[in-house]
Amino acid sequence: LDVSPCAEARVLVINTGGTIGMMYHNNVLSPEPNAFVKALRKLPILHDEQYALQTRMYDYYSTSGPQENTLVLPLCKQNKRIVYTVLEYSPLLDSCNMTTDDWATIGKDIEKHYEKYDGFVILHGTDTMAYTASALSFMCEHLGKPVILTGSQVPIYEMRNDGRDNLLGALLIAGQFVIPEVCLYFHNKLYRGNRVTKVDSGSFNAFNSPNLAPLANAEVDIKINWDTVWRANTTSRFRVSTQMNRNVGLLRLFPGITAMTVKSFLQAPMEGIVLETYGSGNAPDNRADLLEEFRNATERGVIMVNCTQCLRGSVTTSYATGKALSDAGLVAGCDMTPEAALCKLSYVLARTDLNKEAKIKMLSQNLRGEMIADLQGAKLTLSDS
Amino acid sequence: LDVSPCAEARVLVINTGGTIGMMYHNNVLSPEPNAFVKALRKLPILHDEQYALQTRMYDYYSTSGPQENTLVLPLCKQNKRIVYTVLEYSPLLDSCNMTTDDWATIGKDIEKHYEKYDGFVILHGTDTMAYTASALSFMCEHLGKPVILTGSQVPIYEMRNDGRDNLLGALLIAGQFVIPEVCLYFHNKLYRGNRVTKVDSGSFNAFNSPNLAPLANAEVDIKINWDTVWRANTTSRFRVSTQMNRNVGLLRLFPGITAMTVKSFLQAPMEGIVLETYGSGNAPDNRADLLEEFRNATERGVIMVNCTQCLRGSVTTSYATGKALSDAGLVAGCDMTPEAALCKLSYVLARTDLNKEAKIKMLSQNLRGEMIADLQGAKLTLSDS
Amino acid sequence: LDVSPCAEARVLVINTGGTIGMMYHNNVLSPEPNAFVKALRKLPILHDEQYALQTRMYDYYSTSGPQENTLVLPLCKQNKRIVYTVLEYSPLLDSCNMTTDDWATIGKDIEKHYEKYDGFVILHGTDTMAYTASALSFMCEHLGKPVILTGSQVPIYEMRNDGRDNLLGALLIAGQFVIPEVCLYFHNKLYRGNRVTKVDSGSFNAFNSPNLAPLANAEVDIKINWDTVWRANTTSRFRVSTQMNRNVGLLRLFPGITAMTVKSFLQAPMEGIVLETYGSGNAPDNRADLLEEFRNATERGVIMVNCTQCLRGSVTTSYATGKALSDAGLVAGCDMTPEAALCKLSYVLARTDLNKEAKIKMLSQNLRGEMIADLQGAKLTLSDS
Amino acid sequence: LDVSPCAEARVLVINTGGTIGMMYHNNVLSPEPNAFVKALRKLPILHDEQYALQTRMYDYYSTSGPQENTLVLPLCKQNKRIVYTVLEYSPLLDSCNMTTDDWATIGKDIEKHYEKYDGFVILHGTDTMAYTASALSFMCEHLGKPVILTGSQVPIYEMRNDGRDNLLGALLIAGQFVIPEVCLYFHNKLYRGNRVTKVDSGSFNAFNSPNLAPLANAEVDIKINWDTVWRANTTSRFRVSTQMNRNVGLLRLFPGITAMTVKSFLQAPMEGIVLETYGSGNAPDNRADLLEEFRNATERGVIMVNCTQCLRGSVTTSYATGKALSDAGLVAGCDMTPEAALCKLSYVLARTDLNKEAKIKMLSQNLRGEMIADLQGAKLTLSDS
Repeated sequence: LDVSPCAEARVLVINTGGTIGMMYHNNVLSPEPNAFVKALRKLPILHDEQYALQTRMYDYYSTSGPQENTLVLPLCKQNKRIVYTVLEYSPLLDSCNMTTDDWATIGKDIEKHYEKYDGFVILHGTDTMAYTASALSFMCEHLGKPVILTGSQVPIYEMRNDGRDNLLGALLIAGQFVIPEVCLYFHNKLYRGNRVTKVDSGSFNAFNSPNLAPLANAEVDIKINWDTVWRANTTSRFRVSTQMNRNVGLLRLFPGITAMTVKSFLQAPMEGIVLETYGSGNAPDNRADLLEEFRNATERGVIMVNCTQCLRGSVTTSYATGKALSDAGLVAGCDMTPEAALCKLSYVLARTDLNKEAKIKMLSQNLRGEMIADLQGAKLTLSDS
Repeated sequence: LDVSPCAEARVLVINTGGTIGMMYHNNVLSPEPNAFVKALRKLPILHDEQYALQTRMYDYYSTSGPQENTLVLPLCKQNKRIVYTVLEYSPLLDSCNMTTDDWATIGKDIEKHYEKYDGFVILHGTDTMAYTASALSFMCEHLGKPVILTGSQVPIYEMRNDGRDNLLGALLIAGQFVIPEVCLYFHNKLYRGNRVTKVDSGSFNAFNSPNLAPLANAEVDIKINWDTVWRANTTSRFRVSTQMNRNVGLLRLFPGITAMTVKSFLQAPMEGIVLETYGSGNAPDNRADLLEEFRNATERGVIMVNCTQCLRGSVTTSYATGKALSDAGLVAGCDMTPEAALCKLSYVLARTDLNKEAKIKMLSQNLRGEMIADLQGAKLTLSDS
Repeated sequence: LDVSPCAEARVLVINTGGTIGMMYHNNVLSPEPNAFVKALRKLPILHDEQYALQTRMYDYYSTSGPQENTLVLPLCKQNKRIVYTVLEYSPLLDSCNMTTDDWATIGKDIEKHYEKYDGFVILHGTDTMAYTASALSFMCEHLGKPVILTGSQVPIYEMRNDGRDNLLGALLIAGQFVIPEVCLYFHNKLYRGNRVTKVDSGSFNAFNSPNLAPLANAEVDIKINWDTVWRANTTSRFRVSTQMNRNVGLLRLFPGITAMTVKSFLQAPMEGIVLETYGSGNAPDNRADLLEEFRNATERGVIMVNCTQCLRGSVTTSYATGKALSDAGLVAGCDMTPEAALCKLSYVLARTDLNKEAKIKMLSQNLRGEMIADLQGAKLTLSDS
Repeated sequence: LDVSPCAEARVLVINTGGTIGMMYHNNVLSPEPNAFVKALRKLPILHDEQYALQTRMYDYYSTSGPQENTLVLPLCKQNKRIVYTVLEYSPLLDSCNMTTDDWATIGKDIEKHYEKYDGFVILHGTDTMAYTASALSFMCEHLGKPVILTGSQVPIYEMRNDGRDNLLGALLIAGQFVIPEVCLYFHNKLYRGNRVTKVDSGSFNAFNSPNLAPLANAEVDIKINWDTVWRANTTSRFRVSTQMNRNVGLLRLFPGITAMTVKSFLQAPMEGIVLETYGSGNAPDNRADLLEEFRNATERGVIMVNCTQCLRGSVTTSYATGKALSDAGLVAGCDMTPEAALCKLSYVLARTDLNKEAKIKMLSQNLRGEMIADLQGAKLTLSDS
């Protein structure tokens, strides 16, 4: 065994819960506390005990908490060691139960440990992972290191599972590449976090980034698509903004939706909603009652973002039925996912230093690569038929 | 030209509106009345005027309305002629503006003309086509002939458009195959109507049937997957049930949703909702306030169906967070699309002859191939890991 | 730990070599003998030593060779144990170096151990795995148990690798399902062995079955598509025919191919070739010199099978340029892969008990699900346009 | 009708034959001369006769040959007219019958008419379209205008066909975008010509560019991926090199290939071959007889290029079995298609001004975007596992 000195990268793994660390109790899966690290320590591909002992790694990292929470991967091809410390939350959460408070907790932990680590991996349930990834992407301002959410569809304690490979891939990328984004790694692909949505509840290939190609593919080799990686052009200091407005909601249009339903949904204390419209951002334009409710709400100060309920595509103003919404004061959500739009709204509405116009302007801008804003002026596109 | 006698099939085309027949007015698309048939008559692939004249077709079909509304396709390879009559609605509708009333109108027209035609093609906007296809699938009881919805992403009046091919394919299938289902034909694929969802607002390949393979592929050859085609095993007479309950809604869960929002959404006169949950049908199980609202509603008689907000997959009871919902009285929506679930709910709730238990039982059954109901007993599946 | 008695299934793993068991020597990968089983024994997901000891498994299976070559998987959900014995070939082979003799060795080993095991897993390099799977499918006559080839793109000794999951999936299927076919398992999919081709040299998703859907998908659950599984309707005794004719070849057409090249390729001792033609089975029909060579060869007794060089699709007789080949005496290969066609040819030509006509007839029949033979009479297809 | 003056772009359409212009004769498809333009003139989406007459277009373009061969598309959205002249070859060819001479004829016609047109569309059968596109990409030196090959799977004379849309899309791109490449347009996608291969004989989506994303997608809008478009950085004058060496061939490895077969294939006058190897460029390294034949050939001056028989991926030097070939003198073909490699070999071998080393060097360079040459030094890739 080679334990000669080599470069070490440090990764902080924040274990918030999720299927990856669940066990069956009475035929139902729920999180199992204080078990995850123990399981990892038994997997040679995820921990090299011999290296740890011979290099006295545990002594060296003794300030990072209990020594058993620090592990080390086998030697990478680049002659590098990735040392990672697991910080387990208590209680562990099924991601269905995640709230804005939990997002803030994660954000604060990244901020607190930012200087000491080269990258961050967040273990998280898949159900709301796209929401949390979106939220963190806005909360993390001037990010200069990788923050990668991952998890699994089958617990790491099962024989066949996707947890080992997802964790390993996330660690290797977080420890070796300077991708200054909040990302999501799943089934051999690295995505921009605010671009994904969960599309399959029964497949290992659970996520999709419908309007942006993956940032990286980890097949036989790991290939980074550097052209797609976000560059913020900033020298500002990293900070996490944990202020998020909770009075926001997601409303999907459906045929026969009543003005009454819309009115109830939009009533105070609601301050912002993402309206999931049809196709290219369309809604009924012959429903005066409905449009009236939208207009009333925007006049009352409620900010509404128009996103399509289609998996792929963008909100445009090609149709009369789409124009009605923009006339009613809705902000075009372009090609944002509903998840990203909801989190952006929550982030922007919390900016009490801004007036309504400034908030709307901010919503219309591309803040973290979450959308292609310049739809009309797109020089590369020629609509022709 | 060959105008010798040959078998003729008759198809009724009901033009409800949609992009396929829209024109630009001030840079915005809206439906153009009384123009569609005129455009078709000029397209040799969609009308063979010479055959019409030489066989005195117009005289023969004079009872089907104005002669200019009956057209005939060129000779098919099977030595068959498809004669089709276009019934244009007034006003033509952008499908965003479709309501339950419009579904009933279409249903009644199919019923009225059922005996005279071999198949039906419904031209419809893409935005709510999946909803209308789902609704018609339930409304049409004991259907024995094909009813095929289609439309396009680009108007037939534009140079490059998908309308010609979609209409032509739908006519050829409706006139030549006995597929006794409400279907949706788009971009060379025939889908079961209550299985589709619009997934792309900017591509010709706009629809997807995430949990069921297409019924047919129309590539160089038209291949029908007969094993998948629905067989109702019925000798009952075809009828259309136009009773649909309008007090139904679609509510998508999101992190931070408040009990207040849920309560407002569920208040009277709401009688049924489809809850779009996370992953395999999960919702927060640590939110007593939320679960309380669900329980209150079901106790008040509101029926709630649990569908996943994932594109693919099915609602199961594997997770503690999913079990909470079933304990709160929600009906498992299995692998139904939200569109199908909403229409099924509307159809079942209108059955005033049934009590609540019977309605719930009916919702749990596979009525028109809209879902795979037998999730637990699935003999072909072995969950192993 | 649960070591209570449970059903046991037995699987024989024949390790022929390939990337899955390779190591780097001077930056180049080559097979590493006597290392594979040792590596498996250290992976808890692939071996449960405690169960082995407590149940005295090694004593029980002591007749199966050295005890260290028998391993046991952790308990399956169906309360079953899969006990597997590894038979390592010496020398281990890079699959590039596989020959007809090696196919015979594998076949004989399956035959020898047929009664004692419930299923067979063949570890094999990916480069010629599709050829070996095709060959074994024909050599194994009246097969009643699963024979599953697998391997990996990255060695099991590397940190990130696909070998663990491929081996585990193959074992679970071989030990639990009666799929009486020679199959290939890779990247969560089980394919019919004579339908696959290697399509990607750099991705974990290396194989494709272009003209037949997978037999099973192993995602969160393992789902078997029983409708597709081959049923031979035979009660004959299983046997392996190791006679394979070696005087067969694969020739791909290209523009400008000379009659001289064809003549050289077809010269004795060549007895049969698969001609990879264009599109639907087409070749130049204006090249009298070329057609002359084909005709000469068939008249000399060489049997030629016409397969398309396209990944997907089938050989038909729609084109004048395709008809020329059938006139020259070539047998239509329908939708067979070139790999399957080559092995079928080798198998059929070895049947010295048959005359040329009987051999051609046999080639035109669907022997092991390797093709859809009835192209013209396909009732489900209607070519219409 | 708007016939007001507008910008006109001119496109030359060279009709070489292929399915797009075929008709059935005795149930077999063959090219139909002097019929194609007549058919186009009857299709309003492909010709606007009224504009032609009112603007006296035929007079203006009278020097371009018979007036009936010049047509004009309806007005594009950019207020532009695309005027195109069809040059029909005689005889029309099924693309199976295409030879190096035909490539030269096409090349010379592009050169002859280069100044007068803004772009070129080549109608061609699909069977060898990938070969011709590859050949033209090398023959056209310092190209500054689009040359787009297209065709169809079903003749334009059939009811359902893909010919209209393929021709229309190719014309719109050739007339409106300065993409200085030899391209292939099919089923709504524009590909680099030397990157494609025909993958499906029965689908409209017949082509695939396995190792390079499309240059453009023509869905509801036409989107050009300008980052992918080739820029030659040249100010040299356009010229067509019609010298192509015909003594080249394509040889696919298969298990059991004999040294005799290889020797026959490589014998004079063969001067260069593309060897289709396994996986990442592998061949048997335990077959001294085979390697001997390769070595003999390279020593005799035959140049051999190593390409993979996998659809996707690249030739590397990771395996001992791959290293044997590079030791035997084969040139690494990187991620070239066999079609591109064959044509490049034919082009390079015709350079009689170069010695063998210079030819090998040229083969190893990326000349027209046909491959990614820098495999080892790829900075963006980190092989890690």
